[in-house]
Amino acid sequence: MDKMTLAELRRIVEDSEAAELHDYIVEVNAIDISVISEDLDDRELWKLCQLLTDEDLAMVLEQASDEQRVRIAASVPNDELIEVFGYMQKDDIADLIGDMKIVQRKALINQMMEDDRKIIRTLLKYPEDSAGGIMTTAYIALDEDLSVGQGMTRIRQIANKTEVLETVYIVNHSQELVGVANLRTFLTTKKDTKLKDVMKINPVYVHPEDDQEYAAKLVSKYDLNAIPVVNNRGSILGIITVDDIIDVIVEEYNEDILELGGVSSEENLNTSLGESIKLRLPWLLVNLATAFLASLTVKAFEGTISQVVALSATMTIVTGMGGNSGSQTQSILVRQLSQDDISLKKYSKAFFKEILLGIINGAVNGVITGVIVALIYKNFYLGVIIFIAMIGNMVVGGVFGFLVPVVLKRLGADPAVASSIFLTTATDVLGFFIFLGLAQLFLPVLL
Amino acid sequence: MDKMTLAELRRIVEDSEAAELHDYIVEVNAIDISVISEDLDDRELWKLCQLLTDEDLAMVLEQASDEQRVRIAASVPNDELIEVFGYMQKDDIADLIGDMKIVQRKALINQMMEDDRKIIRTLLKYPEDSAGGIMTTAYIALDEDLSVGQGMTRIRQIANKTEVLETVYIVNHSQELVGVANLRTFLTTKKDTKLKDVMKINPVYVHPEDDQEYAAKLVSKYDLNAIPVVNNRGSILGIITVDDIIDVIVEEYNEDILELGGVSSEENLNTSLGESIKLRLPWLLVNLATAFLASLTVKAFEGTISQVVALSATMTIVTGMGGNSGSQTQSILVRQLSQDDISLKKYSKAFFKEILLGIINGAVNGVITGVIVALIYKNFYLGVIIFIAMIGNMVVGGVFGFLVPVVLKRLGADPAVASSIFLTTATDVLGFFIFLGLAQLFLPVLL
Repeated sequence: MDKMTLAELRRIVEDSEAAELHDYIVEVNAIDISVISEDLDDRELWKLCQLLTDEDLAMVLEQASDEQRVRIAASVPNDELIEVFGYMQKDDIADLIGDMKIVQRKALINQMMEDDRKIIRTLLKYPEDSAGGIMTTAYIALDEDLSVGQGMTRIRQIANKTEVLETVYIVNHSQELVGVANLRTFLTTKKDTKLKDVMKINPVYVHPEDDQEYAAKLVSKYDLNAIPVVNNRGSILGIITVDDIIDVIVEEYNEDILELGGVSSEENLNTSLGESIKLRLPWLLVNLATAFLASLTVKAFEGTISQVVALSATMTIVTGMGGNSGSQTQSILVRQLSQDDISLKKYSKAFFKEILLGIINGAVNGVITGVIVALIYKNFYLGVIIFIAMIGNMVVGGVFGFLVPVVLKRLGADPAVASSIFLTTATDVLGFFIFLGLAQLFLPVLL
Repeated sequence: MDKMTLAELRRIVEDSEAAELHDYIVEVNAIDISVISEDLDDRELWKLCQLLTDEDLAMVLEQASDEQRVRIAASVPNDELIEVFGYMQKDDIADLIGDMKIVQRKALINQMMEDDRKIIRTLLKYPEDSAGGIMTTAYIALDEDLSVGQGMTRIRQIANKTEVLETVYIVNHSQELVGVANLRTFLTTKKDTKLKDVMKINPVYVHPEDDQEYAAKLVSKYDLNAIPVVNNRGSILGIITVDDIIDVIVEEYNEDILELGGVSSEENLNTSLGESIKLRLPWLLVNLATAFLASLTVKAFEGTISQVVALSATMTIVTGMGGNSGSQTQSILVRQLSQDDISLKKYSKAFFKEILLGIINGAVNGVITGVIVALIYKNFYLGVIIFIAMIGNMVVGGVFGFLVPVVLKRLGADPAVASSIFLTTATDVLGFFIFLGLAQLFLPVLL
């Protein structure tokens, strides 16, 4: 079967081809329907939902984006939605309900069965970006005193209700997580062996209030296919599966890329104009303030510039290059800080390397710039001054590119977001000050 | 057991506490040893390897970074290394061997058994960052004509040799991949059911020469725990497991963050000074060339600046703000392009939104800047000119922030790497040109 297109889906919906739709979902996948349905209008979407079986609708819902999920749920009556929930994982239900309008949310929770209601309420309790917020309650936990054979019987019984089959969690009589076992062990070990004798102790775990990024780091570091979420008493509350961990990593990646460029992670190409203005303008205004700071620095030297007008054309080379070398240092720091903490003490060698780099890269760029400027303006001393200023400002770039992210992280801020503002302020203000200050000092020889 | 520290590992090595080391690896994990061993000197590392059993050494090797793997392998005799390989996955062996010096590599391959040699040679054939380069040959493939019961027997036999247990690949009599089945199905379906009747057809797959990023996208999109690698004849060659996919995503993330800042992905805090210069200087020199372009633009207006020296202090506000608004647009485009292709036609609405945004954000920032500048310099017309120039340059930022990444991607370049150079050149050169050009035009009223 070929990949579904919008036109085909429209035809299927108009002609009420329920069977064709079902075949596609079973034989190819549900996610294509989820994605393409974003381009359907409300009437078409409503008709699509009517054509889908509860089970297929559950799959389409699980694969849909947050916004589309809410749109789909809004076009299905609550009674039917409850039926659909029967085919969905609890964590997905909680995510969906969490995004709904409060009225529909309350109505749905009240219509659920007591057991489900409890689980959903617990899942809704944790923030969306915490370990508890992304965990699922569909996991296998077995008592350590069971035998491998007994465990296998239990696994067969709940296999269809669990998200991860390969990893089995082992608890003691107080329901505390004491170990993990791979399904492999169940398939290859003698049936009467006690689980406590084959399990791996000291399992890696997170607490529900831990940040989802922390959970992602552990899964990535230990190559897990799920990580258990455990409360303060050591009882297992749920697990986070690796597909959700991948979503976390991709999400954090997108956030960092956007925030480094001064954009909120909520924005994308389809964000409305009004929303984009609201999201971007504050960042621009902060930058405007720093631009004025740099401008005032230049203003302080207007007397000098009016006598040597060549300064105004060359000063931006010094500030621009300081900014560029600083952002190189900053990138390395932001990357490193996303992986672990940096103490200045441990990395003092790296810090001094950045200063040395500033001097050497500054000297190379400074010589080239100095020679060209001296030739263009037929002014040897202007060349010398720009050479010195280039070295000075590249050192400024290295120092601030290193320190700003470290200090921001220490203060609890995200280094990816705010670093570039402070760095640019430093390399602009200090760059102008060093270059124009030197020019003022050596004004007699420049004239 | 507490987390291992460097001091403890040193003590264990000095006192030859092999049992303690083994217990830690079995009960806690091997990765801590892999990481901490990076800080051991060569003699200590050699002693550590001697203390480890072959199986434990295999685990430490599998968890170690690329560089540390090679260091460890170099401190173990080839004969023993062959024994250690017996406990390692073939893809990890191929990775390790691929990083070794050619002499040791050849010697090792020659010492292997015929079967292993063949597999390793095949794995070494594909580039490191291709699907073939990261696949493993330890997977389960069953004939579609087997029954569920027969399949289960086979799974039990090879369970210990496979990396992924949960997903079973189904092939036809010509060894072509025709479907996948979840282990769940084997545990919950009647034993005499034929596999071809329970498998899911149309499995998602990649070719060995596909980029590893493409494989990562598919795994992330379809929530897989492994993806099969298939040759042109449709035969399965291996699978890529989700833990390796996570490594790919994290690696690509780090590359993008660094390249956006003008740093090679090969660099980190521990890179030597000489290496850092080699990696960073070329980027700085390219930037220097663009800085000169901007400088020459200013030089063309030196006559005007010498008459209205206030221009030199205010012109950098216009170029800086154009750059900032452009980098906002650029970030959104780079993010979007990392997920799918953008045709200008499909996104013409988004493109015009960026132009509108430039006008509106430019107007807001322009009014503020214009008023302040007019007041500081007591010059109404200077305020008006900077207002117009701000709008103009923010539109330049939006247009180039949008087009540069799209065009670079179309040309086959990585938008994350080179976009900012072209963007800055545009907002600097055109920003100076618009602002100083307007000033020259209205010179009489400015004086």
